[in-house]
Amino acid sequence: MANRILIKDATLVTMDENRDQDRGIVNTGDLYIENDLIKQITCGMEVTPEDVQIISGKNKVVIPGLINLHNHAAMTLFRSYADDYPLMEWLTKKIFPAEAKLTEDDVYWGTSLALLEMIRGGTTTFVDMYYYMEQTARACQEAGIRALLSQVFINSGNNKGLNSLEDAIDFIENWQDENNGRIQAILGPHALYTCPPDFLKKMLKKTEHLNAIIHIHLSESRGEVEETLKNYQKTPVALLEEIGLFERDVIAGHCVHLNDQDIAILSSRGVGISHNPCSNLKLANGIAPLKKLLDHGACVGLGTDGAASNNNLDMFEEIKLCSLLQKGLLEDPTAIPALEAFKLATRGGVKAIKKENSLGILKEGAKADLAIVDFNKPHLQPHNDPVANLVYAASAGDVETVIIDGNILYHKGEFLTMDQERIYYEAAKCSKRLRQ
Amino acid sequence: MANRILIKDATLVTMDENRDQDRGIVNTGDLYIENDLIKQITCGMEVTPEDVQIISGKNKVVIPGLINLHNHAAMTLFRSYADDYPLMEWLTKKIFPAEAKLTEDDVYWGTSLALLEMIRGGTTTFVDMYYYMEQTARACQEAGIRALLSQVFINSGNNKGLNSLEDAIDFIENWQDENNGRIQAILGPHALYTCPPDFLKKMLKKTEHLNAIIHIHLSESRGEVEETLKNYQKTPVALLEEIGLFERDVIAGHCVHLNDQDIAILSSRGVGISHNPCSNLKLANGIAPLKKLLDHGACVGLGTDGAASNNNLDMFEEIKLCSLLQKGLLEDPTAIPALEAFKLATRGGVKAIKKENSLGILKEGAKADLAIVDFNKPHLQPHNDPVANLVYAASAGDVETVIIDGNILYHKGEFLTMDQERIYYEAAKCSKRLRQ
Repeated sequence: MANRILIKDATLVTMDENRDQDRGIVNTGDLYIENDLIKQITCGMEVTPEDVQIISGKNKVVIPGLINLHNHAAMTLFRSYADDYPLMEWLTKKIFPAEAKLTEDDVYWGTSLALLEMIRGGTTTFVDMYYYMEQTARACQEAGIRALLSQVFINSGNNKGLNSLEDAIDFIENWQDENNGRIQAILGPHALYTCPPDFLKKMLKKTEHLNAIIHIHLSESRGEVEETLKNYQKTPVALLEEIGLFERDVIAGHCVHLNDQDIAILSSRGVGISHNPCSNLKLANGIAPLKKLLDHGACVGLGTDGAASNNNLDMFEEIKLCSLLQKGLLEDPTAIPALEAFKLATRGGVKAIKKENSLGILKEGAKADLAIVDFNKPHLQPHNDPVANLVYAASAGDVETVIIDGNILYHKGEFLTMDQERIYYEAAKCSKRLRQ
Repeated sequence: MANRILIKDATLVTMDENRDQDRGIVNTGDLYIENDLIKQITCGMEVTPEDVQIISGKNKVVIPGLINLHNHAAMTLFRSYADDYPLMEWLTKKIFPAEAKLTEDDVYWGTSLALLEMIRGGTTTFVDMYYYMEQTARACQEAGIRALLSQVFINSGNNKGLNSLEDAIDFIENWQDENNGRIQAILGPHALYTCPPDFLKKMLKKTEHLNAIIHIHLSESRGEVEETLKNYQKTPVALLEEIGLFERDVIAGHCVHLNDQDIAILSSRGVGISHNPCSNLKLANGIAPLKKLLDHGACVGLGTDGAASNNNLDMFEEIKLCSLLQKGLLEDPTAIPALEAFKLATRGGVKAIKKENSLGILKEGAKADLAIVDFNKPHLQPHNDPVANLVYAASAGDVETVIIDGNILYHKGEFLTMDQERIYYEAAKCSKRLRQ
């Protein structure tokens, strides 16, 4: 039997540019889902209740599911474990020793905890990079979330028990477009400073046949850029351009420290940039030139980064913060208006993952990946402007229902595919062992 | 009959410096309330359930109620009504015309909406400045929240239908320490640029007998400081020092643009500074030198400012943001660690309002003003560090119970003193009329 859901009498923030006349906002509309697709957007639709699950949209706002472009999901195990340390001390004394003890089980339960949080907060697709990626894939498969997953690897892979390029290729071959296309395996070279140019060139050659998006950390810290300039007389962006990385589809995490030439390269190459404002502030890397990137036509989405450097996976925080930071920094209150900020978490994200037609939009024929936000809350009253409310006032906790691929995964406090209490219990156990 | 409440087996973040050995965090303790006071903090307390209301603290964290040091509560009516405008256009074309139509009823309902939001988010005391302050006082009285309220006035008061100094004095005399001391009337000269030095001098003389805290906007925008320098060859802070304002107890909102001498004056005078990072970014005023102020021993608390420039009253956002901004700006991940950020919203706030012994702390004999935060949420798992979770991961929506003056005002989604639906309805009606 077909999966049929009707969301009735809701405000629909469609993010559909073909609806430009109404700024993409349908006040009081119905959204009808059949199987994994949005079948109809209309008004006053009548259905037979026996055949269709009806969800009231009264005082609710339906949005395309949010796209979290950069995460290390299993790092929820290290949430609030080591904060406020200098970067090198944080890494070498806290994170690396704990990660050295990681097992497959840890990644499975840490990821599962992250999935609870992301789904609960309206994220329907995320891009990940970490160890034991098969376990992340398994957790995603069971939960029903959409994900682009990269097994992280570095040049010295296999010498220190870390993943090698070969492991990453195996992962891609094993997990290509699983689960109705919900799980997509991509390529995750960690960063330029751990994967030097010659190694990256070798990687490009060896993975030519895979057609996989490349997910990499790029120009995150000032030190990384200075080091690359010293060693190669080029910025990280210019160096990657030189070796031909940007001829492939790339998602670059962070991109904080950029010069004008970097911005021109990233924009003209259509590199998908994951802007992660919370993490960039918390790890003291600074503030990326978001406005300048957008003015140059760059493809930018938003990400939370891992929970160890945020410390949550709330995309609403990133949406608000990316706008506020540019206004404050540039002393311009018109910088990154509400709709533009919301676009980054939806249209920007799907452009970066090359799913512009099927995700991050509410329109007939698109995938039924969406969230219903409950506006019946004091901080979302009165209902003056739904987009401004979403961007400047809402938070993950306001999401009431999440649908991915036409399946309801979360509804009014209940997870329909995951055992919340079991995940809390197992994740706490893993976290405790790793911290010891 | 005495009001008796026992919160059992909770994690208590006391913020009590005399508990320095345990960083002020009691894991699994009981907190017992009698009437308006915290009577006992202990472990394994046994009571007769008929006499005492018992609240389970399992997986919950009890915190002192948060102090919102700078608000214009009734401006919830303008939430998401005019965003992303240049400052002067925002004020002259949007906010001022709407405010010109304000009635007493508007302020009553707008404030009531703000109280729902603040109470729901764990704020137990707030400092306000706006028009028709009797209506704000009435709404606070009915809700049971704690507040310091200032009727705003400017030099040209009464000429344009605005409040005069005399109105403000009347308000103070009428509302001095009402409701078991919960409502405290204070003095609210708007700002130096609307209340010139001679007028402020007159004000100081006329209000000498009142012993009222002075609440004023100070050095919020770059333009304001430049204007004062041009007209008086002094910064706003130096000018207020010269006329003797800081000889009184002062709460100064914003303090974004400060030079070293300003910081020295504010610190040595013990001026209570309301740091409002969200509003300062959103209105494009910049980032206050918080770390420098604290290094100089300044008295700093946190505020949301009004909902028209934020757009919510979520103190957890301010707590997280104040820390992240300094880390990012100073490129120092150790700047404003979690406990210091949380201190600002509790100990910093009560120092500014001169209630250090009775509020913003969980200890025997202090007022029973507190919030219970539900950690049984994906984004607050695992329970590695309760303070880091509160600061970097929690939000207003995680608050489950709020107690003020020993009375439960909010518990598990229910407001016990306020009619939520009626307030939504009336506030929406007022907001619609004002926007027309």
